[in-house]
Amino acid sequence: MRKLPLDLIKRALEEDGADYDITTLSTVPAEQTAQADIIARQHGVIAGLAVAAETFRQFDVCVSVTLLVADGANVHPNQSLASVHGPARSLLSAERIAMNFLGHLSGIATLTSHCVQAIEGTRARILDTRKTTPGLRSLEKDAVLLGGGHNHRYGLSDGVLIKDNHIKAAGGIVQAVTAARRTAQHLLKIEVECETLSEVRLALEAGADVILLDNMDVETMRSAVELVRQRAPGVLLEASGNIGTNRERLAAVAAAGVDFISLGALTHSAPNFDVSLEFA
Amino acid sequence: MRKLPLDLIKRALEEDGADYDITTLSTVPAEQTAQADIIARQHGVIAGLAVAAETFRQFDVCVSVTLLVADGANVHPNQSLASVHGPARSLLSAERIAMNFLGHLSGIATLTSHCVQAIEGTRARILDTRKTTPGLRSLEKDAVLLGGGHNHRYGLSDGVLIKDNHIKAAGGIVQAVTAARRTAQHLLKIEVECETLSEVRLALEAGADVILLDNMDVETMRSAVELVRQRAPGVLLEASGNIGTNRERLAAVAAAGVDFISLGALTHSAPNFDVSLEFA
Amino acid sequence: MRKLPLDLIKRALEEDGADYDITTLSTVPAEQTAQADIIARQHGVIAGLAVAAETFRQFDVCVSVTLLVADGANVHPNQSLASVHGPARSLLSAERIAMNFLGHLSGIATLTSHCVQAIEGTRARILDTRKTTPGLRSLEKDAVLLGGGHNHRYGLSDGVLIKDNHIKAAGGIVQAVTAARRTAQHLLKIEVECETLSEVRLALEAGADVILLDNMDVETMRSAVELVRQRAPGVLLEASGNIGTNRERLAAVAAAGVDFISLGALTHSAPNFDVSLEFA
Amino acid sequence: MRKLPLDLIKRALEEDGADYDITTLSTVPAEQTAQADIIARQHGVIAGLAVAAETFRQFDVCVSVTLLVADGANVHPNQSLASVHGPARSLLSAERIAMNFLGHLSGIATLTSHCVQAIEGTRARILDTRKTTPGLRSLEKDAVLLGGGHNHRYGLSDGVLIKDNHIKAAGGIVQAVTAARRTAQHLLKIEVECETLSEVRLALEAGADVILLDNMDVETMRSAVELVRQRAPGVLLEASGNIGTNRERLAAVAAAGVDFISLGALTHSAPNFDVSLEFA
Amino acid sequence: MRKLPLDLIKRALEEDGADYDITTLSTVPAEQTAQADIIARQHGVIAGLAVAAETFRQFDVCVSVTLLVADGANVHPNQSLASVHGPARSLLSAERIAMNFLGHLSGIATLTSHCVQAIEGTRARILDTRKTTPGLRSLEKDAVLLGGGHNHRYGLSDGVLIKDNHIKAAGGIVQAVTAARRTAQHLLKIEVECETLSEVRLALEAGADVILLDNMDVETMRSAVELVRQRAPGVLLEASGNIGTNRERLAAVAAAGVDFISLGALTHSAPNFDVSLEFA
Amino acid sequence: MRKLPLDLIKRALEEDGADYDITTLSTVPAEQTAQADIIARQHGVIAGLAVAAETFRQFDVCVSVTLLVADGANVHPNQSLASVHGPARSLLSAERIAMNFLGHLSGIATLTSHCVQAIEGTRARILDTRKTTPGLRSLEKDAVLLGGGHNHRYGLSDGVLIKDNHIKAAGGIVQAVTAARRTAQHLLKIEVECETLSEVRLALEAGADVILLDNMDVETMRSAVELVRQRAPGVLLEASGNIGTNRERLAAVAAAGVDFISLGALTHSAPNFDVSLEFA
Repeated sequence: MRKLPLDLIKRALEEDGADYDITTLSTVPAEQTAQADIIARQHGVIAGLAVAAETFRQFDVCVSVTLLVADGANVHPNQSLASVHGPARSLLSAERIAMNFLGHLSGIATLTSHCVQAIEGTRARILDTRKTTPGLRSLEKDAVLLGGGHNHRYGLSDGVLIKDNHIKAAGGIVQAVTAARRTAQHLLKIEVECETLSEVRLALEAGADVILLDNMDVETMRSAVELVRQRAPGVLLEASGNIGTNRERLAAVAAAGVDFISLGALTHSAPNFDVSLEFA
Repeated sequence: MRKLPLDLIKRALEEDGADYDITTLSTVPAEQTAQADIIARQHGVIAGLAVAAETFRQFDVCVSVTLLVADGANVHPNQSLASVHGPARSLLSAERIAMNFLGHLSGIATLTSHCVQAIEGTRARILDTRKTTPGLRSLEKDAVLLGGGHNHRYGLSDGVLIKDNHIKAAGGIVQAVTAARRTAQHLLKIEVECETLSEVRLALEAGADVILLDNMDVETMRSAVELVRQRAPGVLLEASGNIGTNRERLAAVAAAGVDFISLGALTHSAPNFDVSLEFA
Repeated sequence: MRKLPLDLIKRALEEDGADYDITTLSTVPAEQTAQADIIARQHGVIAGLAVAAETFRQFDVCVSVTLLVADGANVHPNQSLASVHGPARSLLSAERIAMNFLGHLSGIATLTSHCVQAIEGTRARILDTRKTTPGLRSLEKDAVLLGGGHNHRYGLSDGVLIKDNHIKAAGGIVQAVTAARRTAQHLLKIEVECETLSEVRLALEAGADVILLDNMDVETMRSAVELVRQRAPGVLLEASGNIGTNRERLAAVAAAGVDFISLGALTHSAPNFDVSLEFA
Repeated sequence: MRKLPLDLIKRALEEDGADYDITTLSTVPAEQTAQADIIARQHGVIAGLAVAAETFRQFDVCVSVTLLVADGANVHPNQSLASVHGPARSLLSAERIAMNFLGHLSGIATLTSHCVQAIEGTRARILDTRKTTPGLRSLEKDAVLLGGGHNHRYGLSDGVLIKDNHIKAAGGIVQAVTAARRTAQHLLKIEVECETLSEVRLALEAGADVILLDNMDVETMRSAVELVRQRAPGVLLEASGNIGTNRERLAAVAAAGVDFISLGALTHSAPNFDVSLEFA
Repeated sequence: MRKLPLDLIKRALEEDGADYDITTLSTVPAEQTAQADIIARQHGVIAGLAVAAETFRQFDVCVSVTLLVADGANVHPNQSLASVHGPARSLLSAERIAMNFLGHLSGIATLTSHCVQAIEGTRARILDTRKTTPGLRSLEKDAVLLGGGHNHRYGLSDGVLIKDNHIKAAGGIVQAVTAARRTAQHLLKIEVECETLSEVRLALEAGADVILLDNMDVETMRSAVELVRQRAPGVLLEASGNIGTNRERLAAVAAAGVDFISLGALTHSAPNFDVSLEFA
Repeated sequence: MRKLPLDLIKRALEEDGADYDITTLSTVPAEQTAQADIIARQHGVIAGLAVAAETFRQFDVCVSVTLLVADGANVHPNQSLASVHGPARSLLSAERIAMNFLGHLSGIATLTSHCVQAIEGTRARILDTRKTTPGLRSLEKDAVLLGGGHNHRYGLSDGVLIKDNHIKAAGGIVQAVTAARRTAQHLLKIEVECETLSEVRLALEAGADVILLDNMDVETMRSAVELVRQRAPGVLLEASGNIGTNRERLAAVAAAGVDFISLGALTHSAPNFDVSLEFA
């Protein structure tokens, strides 16, 4: 897990005007304390609980949060996830932002875990992509890990992924791979996006470390896998391109023998996880 | 529309490592220019196009973007939304973040427009909530407007919304409304959340300006509407509480006669809108 | 009260070069501790004491501050307001910024309390305006509350206040009010600035929630009040426009029957409150 | 003059919610342009006009401002100071913050110029102090210059000013001056605060470069001046300590022969200068 | 090259007090313009010229800079590197910071080029390390590239480099490599630091992609190279550990057959490159 | 000493990617603690130890650091400087940045102490310059103090130093000094850079407080010293201009009788001090 994003929490509280919650300030006495539970309202995998806890504490150091499950836990409806105690005003004013983090991230972890289950028993791993919500990448990538998935590269500087436009600009797959090998620092592998089997052959000749099978039907994928395993057993294979989160589709892609299936939907289309704060 | 969130765009480009896109730097010559179109891949309403354009320009002032539709436009699959021209490296390095903004926000606008259509012909308006993605509230609330919806209060400081815990703390609905009236600045209205008809009656007696009907079945809502229209014709009514985005459900709630229907799903569960950047 | 403005305190200490107080560093031994009292040098109402205390603590966590009165207290000359203890260097280096906050904000609270006393016994409340010192709005608005005044809207986004230029642009008072009602979120009231009785009548017809009587003589104000109370008893009335802080003038305006008197002078022309730090 | 404080302008616009001026957005068409003049409503010296102009431009680059007088100008009531042209919405939304800067800073320049006039014909200069509004020091010190005054040190790091507590801690005036001379970089002069003639004598013996006469009556000041001019003609003399802005008092202090009179009131108690934006 | 570090330039100008260069403000008229040349005072390779140019422009947009050589150029004493034109005040006030960037970075590029020359004709590349000046990593790594060197990983997140403490914690080299392979994203290679030939053998068995030969004498290095080339020809070899910048030592290490020689001295001990600004 | 530069430490940790040290996260268990010593590997003077300690604590509040020597200590090879204890992951991830600070700053302190020793027994002091690494000025100036040197002015706003271009622009030395005396605040001394004896004479006539002897040979310096001591015993003398750090050269310059010798090399060319973190 990365460190908690303290700046983002601060900004989120600010954009909610939490510091001047006029409803709470006018109706709840300053000295009143309260106790509340964070409750799951559905089945799924929890992510963002530590962030939610930090949100309460950052708003008011007098709030204490006791986690009843850890991030990554599988939970069921009406299960208590954490217990929050402190000034009633602070619990009410920070509640929404804390729940927004938790609902969003648990939604991603839960969707990821469904996808991971769909391919259980195969060699494939579920990967995320760079299709994350602006400003939330580290949190969303951690949520994918908590759901049982794995991360693809974090951003454009920690991996080489050569796509069609790079190939055109460089003058061919071999030229592109050679240029990347010359420039990128030596701890970065080079992945090449291929749409056809002949591109896969060129990528192998060029010495690619990883091959991304983009928008291929399952049969072509299978041929690509076979080709690569024979000629270059150390080369890894990733399936990508609007694969979606349908269980049968995922199972079929995994059965084709790839090492990774990357899914933009994990981070850009996961529905919110239903969670609420209940006061004692 | 609010001003463009320049800081968020900057952070998003930074978290993607766009300044050091090693693949592009090693394969695409610095002097190469390129032309590309932003293309919709589905039906829907566009939001975030100006943000996407700003993303390219903020990354590199030499990129020019020509909008072919405005934010708020209804588009169809394969329609060109904008044309982008400039250094090929900059188009490739800023592409993902620009598309992430556009896909996320158009997803919200599109879902909102579906909900608005579902209640056409009624007096009701579709409202968003404070259940927004942390750090993106202003963009998401603008996307709701572009989809034909309306905004609820922006945050905790620009509206009084008294919920059950405030009522308990204040010692009753009348006490809570009175306290808020005394403290809140005089341009803020006071809304009270009610779960039963008797609470609605108390809120009217307390002088609430707006009544939120929370988690009521449609029949009870109808009774509440009737009650309020008779006794206090100036008081507004909002339906809320896990209403969801199902068309029939929305139509039924609207038919009950409320002024507003607020939907968390607009901003926390809208699936990504499919969009891509195609190079000429 | 809003949260303490930690960033502003930090900037204020920085602009004073407090981190490198060469006089103190060269003459006062690092290990020396000191005890000092914050002393009022005049009658008045205290504001900014918590900010001053935080200034000392932010400069050096080893400084402890014991408040002898709370913000909002009425004090007399030579009264001790707080006791400060800690490293002598830190007390000396942070002293000026702490006193600057305290003198400025207590000046505002004291002036406000004079104005509030001037209209005691009437229904009117003293309001601040948006004429605050750039960067200090939240502190100054809190100082007004501590002096017994009330806040007007915080800024341009949490209230609708239609002035002459808005009316001209919209094509009339009715059009302006209608446009605002359509666009503003439903928890915001609409106030209209009027300079004549006929404008007041138009504002009532347009459905304004609040009417601002701008630059009217007291007699016209009285007529306006009478008109509004008769026709629209729920509508609120605010007097504004260079009213100043003269006691007789304030009493006369209040006697006209308005609900609010707003005064720019509270925040933009309050003389500093005399306060000093005395070492034991 | 220092550079314009772009960050402070940004924060001031943000705290006013200028980006979401709901009144203006709902009543003024986006495409409407307007012309307005900044008008002085009193006699005085202008400061902050460049800041006000930058405020409009920072809010919207499409606003153009033509200065009709420069900062430092002596103006009369109803004189036009600048002409502002651009989108009507932007003029209305940025107006208050621009006027807040201008009114505050011109108030300081105007008060300063009154004090400077009071001592004309003497050798004395009017100085500001470190008693400035937190966050506005550079602007306020520039306003003092524009009003004809001079600046004292900017902060604690660019000058040595030894006060009673430093002397006590160091064990005496001689010890304090010696310690400062050893530690401070060699381009900083050393000033010593004295309340009696015998302290003045000690300060001279210690080799002080400047002597501050603190809270002395005018007669004692005169004796101190005589003493210093005789014994150490190169040493400068500053009068300080609740001198206030009364013309006669200032003239008397100046006549005592000091080089500088420093006045906290210039920056902490100057009443706002009356200025307004009038639309054509 | 990475983007110019605008924030760092801003901070550097601020810490120099360039905005209030009292010497220049008092002696040079505001309207005076000047022309000056940046002149090399020694042989070497230039880096930081674009940063220096940006420093002048960021301080004052009216300054124009014409580069006479590009970053990476080999220059001789008294060669003009760039011509600067604009307000004389701005040239004088920004001069030192611009020269500080240029002298520091050209020093690094020059030292790097000496090291690169020392191993010409071998397969080895000169690499930098993470031993960079805090806050200047991107600039210093670019300076190494300009001097003909290559970059090692940028930081701890874009490469796996297993050192002795990681091995101890994981329970052995094989366990550490396996753990890293399981956790790190699939585009990162795994490098293992070895001090002996037997550790090299274990690293090969564990499947390391790169082996770092730490603090080995040249003979042992030669044996390690031989061993690795035989058993695992695809594995890369890096020499490291207080190798220093002595030409003979570098040539000997390179002759041992390694792929990379990494040198902390490039960035932490390069002497400043002598450069000055000469006014016409 | 100035306050610790918390922001710079934060940025340095960020640019190292310390928050996501994938090697450590994958190989070292979260619960493992470790103990390590910071060890000097050479003779010299330590600076930056408090910064290094803060680096560990800022990364992880659970790390405790016990200093075994203070900043400014003279140490020998293999001496333990501090003991660090805490989560093994945090020690490993923050190690490099902590060591980078310590090695860089101790390098400066050590070089300074060599220069100070070279002139022992003379009246001269070793001064730093404004030739510091961008962003590190306060740390580097403190390191000079710890090495026994003294600071020149911090930046352009806390001292007047008139150079040839200022003199040309002002129309002569007398004019420049007069202008500076009129504008600069009265606690700043005025230093004039002179290259010849006749310039020294002019500077004395102009009333300079300090004279900088720039690029003079030692004999001319001696004449300048004699001249100044005779005519204006209170005026200080600084030698500057590529003097370098050679002991004999420094001793000769000091013997000429100047008060200060300023050396850019102290901060721009000090080689790194060798230091390492050894785990128990």
